[in-house]
Amino acid sequence: MKVCIVGFGSVGQGVARVMEMKKDELQKEYGLDLELVAALDRSGAAINPEGLDIKQLLVTKKLTGKVSEYPEYGEEGVSGLEVLMDKVEYHCLIEVTPTNIEDGEPALSHILKAMKDGKDVVTSNKGPLALKFKEIAQAARDNGVQFKYEASVGGAMPIINFAHENLSASKIESIYGILNGTTNYILSRMVKEGSSYEQTLNEAQAMGIAETDPTQDVEGEDAACKVVILANSILKMDVTYDDVEVTGISQITPESIALAKKEGYLIKLIGEVSPESLEVSPRLVKEGSPFAVEGTLNVATLKTDLADDVTVVGKGAGSIETASAILSDLISIWKTK
Amino acid sequence: MKVCIVGFGSVGQGVARVMEMKKDELQKEYGLDLELVAALDRSGAAINPEGLDIKQLLVTKKLTGKVSEYPEYGEEGVSGLEVLMDKVEYHCLIEVTPTNIEDGEPALSHILKAMKDGKDVVTSNKGPLALKFKEIAQAARDNGVQFKYEASVGGAMPIINFAHENLSASKIESIYGILNGTTNYILSRMVKEGSSYEQTLNEAQAMGIAETDPTQDVEGEDAACKVVILANSILKMDVTYDDVEVTGISQITPESIALAKKEGYLIKLIGEVSPESLEVSPRLVKEGSPFAVEGTLNVATLKTDLADDVTVVGKGAGSIETASAILSDLISIWKTK
Repeated sequence: MKVCIVGFGSVGQGVARVMEMKKDELQKEYGLDLELVAALDRSGAAINPEGLDIKQLLVTKKLTGKVSEYPEYGEEGVSGLEVLMDKVEYHCLIEVTPTNIEDGEPALSHILKAMKDGKDVVTSNKGPLALKFKEIAQAARDNGVQFKYEASVGGAMPIINFAHENLSASKIESIYGILNGTTNYILSRMVKEGSSYEQTLNEAQAMGIAETDPTQDVEGEDAACKVVILANSILKMDVTYDDVEVTGISQITPESIALAKKEGYLIKLIGEVSPESLEVSPRLVKEGSPFAVEGTLNVATLKTDLADDVTVVGKGAGSIETASAILSDLISIWKTK
Repeated sequence: MKVCIVGFGSVGQGVARVMEMKKDELQKEYGLDLELVAALDRSGAAINPEGLDIKQLLVTKKLTGKVSEYPEYGEEGVSGLEVLMDKVEYHCLIEVTPTNIEDGEPALSHILKAMKDGKDVVTSNKGPLALKFKEIAQAARDNGVQFKYEASVGGAMPIINFAHENLSASKIESIYGILNGTTNYILSRMVKEGSSYEQTLNEAQAMGIAETDPTQDVEGEDAACKVVILANSILKMDVTYDDVEVTGISQITPESIALAKKEGYLIKLIGEVSPESLEVSPRLVKEGSPFAVEGTLNVATLKTDLADDVTVVGKGAGSIETASAILSDLISIWKTK
């Protein structure tokens, strides 16, 4: 199974790394021989129809910051679409460029192009899913290809395949979740330390948990993308980013946290997905409930008709963790071949 | 798809009820036409090769306590093995007789007989799995049939199929879990009320959460069965009930709970499944961790090499909840036909 990784940042490198780590196991357990034939980043591409040497690729990226510096097979300035056009034969596109919630590009074009050519697609990219879910799902059906995106919501917290496969007997009526690890970290620290929002954000930035521009996380945009994906994918709704009501955590004070704590509650940034409401906002959750988790963990509770509430908890981010979700998607595609 | 339900207590009736509730959806979504051709309890059987009327069966059981009183098709005194022998044609056995951890009977014989005849088997029964996992798995392979047992661990907390399917990229190294809802309820109440073990157990019995003879729950036997099932099924070990070291919760005092609480910990009955240790015992868990859940909830954390810790939380018991896990297993069997 020949794959292209488009986007070679933290997640893309993670995927390459787990492909290398799990090479023998995949072969032994599933008879799956994954071959990386192209990797792309902003600099260009490394392309070898016979398979790239992953170790060499990772070292090249680490030392030069560019996959196009890959010896012999590096090509500077070539774009994702050009590679997918006709540069190399492959079976599955792994689309892991950074999320763009303005127009979903360039990921959207990559995904649609691959599908049109009859290729399966695995992605962690929230942009195209939050903006054009219906079109992409339709393109997958029209072209008879598989489309998997477990890693787009919650990194290593499996929820999408989980809802589709393990809860197949139950109707999922709504989903409530802590869908962003950075805000959960900040709110947990504010509870523990009694510190202000600004101070805690600064600490989180210093630790690399929050980004230099933390807007997507703290203003709830990242969580809102995930709400859209869950609504379309699991609740079979037809909605986009603009349908979500979003409030972030920047207005939360140590006083309100202390007040909640006194009554046995915590404040968390909750994404709500139900036919009546698509919302991201700070909410009170009970101590002792599955939502009372700390740190960068993500949580989602699926309210079902038969199984009552079922909750999953996992790491919401991390290069290897997210890559593991992508690899599980690849295995699941392979199993149906 | 014709099914027999052997055992018509709380779980068996729940299965019949969800088959009836979901009839149209199963037909529409999966093209699955489930037909109940036999139901058995201690009194005998109700058998109709053309399909039993589920509403009538449930009413009969409710009014008389006996499926053998089912009009026209009831048969008094007939045993499970006799029915499976040649009384009726069927595709899948649903084995939901009460758990027996002495010798696993009569469930063990039912399961092996069905497999020998080339029938798929779904069960919630922990006895045969805790005692003879290897033999049953081998019988399933030898006869080319499917064997599913999601409901045997954690009722509506999906863990077995979850580990096999959604975490396929990761190696699962160990599992820690609150695998018994009754003990979690008792310990949670002791924390909240500062009450003694005996008093809290009495209350739980009055509420129907603990059984009149609570031994299997409070002495950790039920959790130990689940440890064995997880060890064999997910960690691919080859162990039985006697390999588990078991300590229950009856020695826990309000003082020890208060002491733990003061330091930010809770006491929970934890099942540990790892190549080094199979154990059920009271342990300290941190407040704010995914293990700090209250009430009758079950929790399990899977420690993996790639995805880090992934946790699932769900109702550990309940007639409809457990039945939903059985129905998911049936759907999964149907999907591969």
